[in-house]
Amino acid sequence: MIYPKSLEELILYFKKLPGVGEKSAERLALSVVKFNEEDINGFSKALVNVRKKLQKCSRCASLTDSEICNICNNKYRNHNIICVVEDYKSVFMFEKIGNFDGVYHVLEGLISPIDGINPDDINISMLIERCKNNDKLEVIVALKPTIEGEATTMYITKLLKGRGKVSRLSYGIPMGTEIDYLDALTLERALNDRQEINSA
Amino acid sequence: MIYPKSLEELILYFKKLPGVGEKSAERLALSVVKFNEEDINGFSKALVNVRKKLQKCSRCASLTDSEICNICNNKYRNHNIICVVEDYKSVFMFEKIGNFDGVYHVLEGLISPIDGINPDDINISMLIERCKNNDKLEVIVALKPTIEGEATTMYITKLLKGRGKVSRLSYGIPMGTEIDYLDALTLERALNDRQEINSA
Repeated sequence: MIYPKSLEELILYFKKLPGVGEKSAERLALSVVKFNEEDINGFSKALVNVRKKLQKCSRCASLTDSEICNICNNKYRNHNIICVVEDYKSVFMFEKIGNFDGVYHVLEGLISPIDGINPDDINISMLIERCKNNDKLEVIVALKPTIEGEATTMYITKLLKGRGKVSRLSYGIPMGTEIDYLDALTLERALNDRQEINSA
Repeated sequence: MIYPKSLEELILYFKKLPGVGEKSAERLALSVVKFNEEDINGFSKALVNVRKKLQKCSRCASLTDSEICNICNNKYRNHNIICVVEDYKSVFMFEKIGNFDGVYHVLEGLISPIDGINPDDINISMLIERCKNNDKLEVIVALKPTIEGEATTMYITKLLKGRGKVSRLSYGIPMGTEIDYLDALTLERALNDRQEINSA
């Protein structure tokens, strides 16, 4: 063993993190050696706290420190617009845009018969529950454009038929991309989803 | 705040690590959310342990979990060959080679009058102490080829004059490099340090 045991152990834990290999784990662990006591203790406690405090929002199933998340609890947000996402990471991505003022619903998965994931296995029934008795409802299904994503989108759309407006994200060309490098499928979708330009 | 507070805090600590920016810190913290309880607690404890258990070896000043490091304590190593290095990271680098069987001496710095670091500020006197009363001694000074490294090498060489063999690492072409891309100084050193090839 090259490193002292305590250091070796810390390296092992850093290696469990995504994208952290042997070399990086060593570098990270060695940098921790130079942390002051306050930072070490804080870091250590923060790890445990994430485990202890984080829970699912009982309304939207997003990640939160309390029973109901800050978004569901925020009366200034538009509770008639529900953005349906695959996981809590998507919630954070949308929040980074900064100007979506609706609320979320986290499915915690996508329908995928091949993997044995049926509609009942993901958080859909709760969504339907939330959509009841609301005639101003708009549901934005924001799932990834894969077979599973599209199947789930279609399934939800069917269930919500007649209960309000249901939309999905537009497919198309990502910003800043050269058209030459796009795959044919994306280009086809961009053509299908083309938007009329209103000249002044 | 986009993330729940406990997650936000963990992100802040990950951001203190070298080479970890906003995006990576978020990714790392989010991955921790999926760790099982055992791993979280282990990680948390490993951080605190590094702080609590790691100390300087009282002989060579390398990093260790005990009073004397495993290398200084190993009677199968050649205690007549002392490799003098700048910091404990160098010790780990040498140990990775795997076939150096001598011991180390960590200077914890280099002489640098510009930065106000004098010979007394680094761990040299202890080295001289270790070199006393030993006529089979070989000291390998393994410092980086900078002004500070070379000044420190010269200083140590002078102090040890008449007390045994003193050598330094060879300067030259790093393995796998194209000669075309080398800087002139390295090439000059490689020429000066050229090694005779013994034909069979």
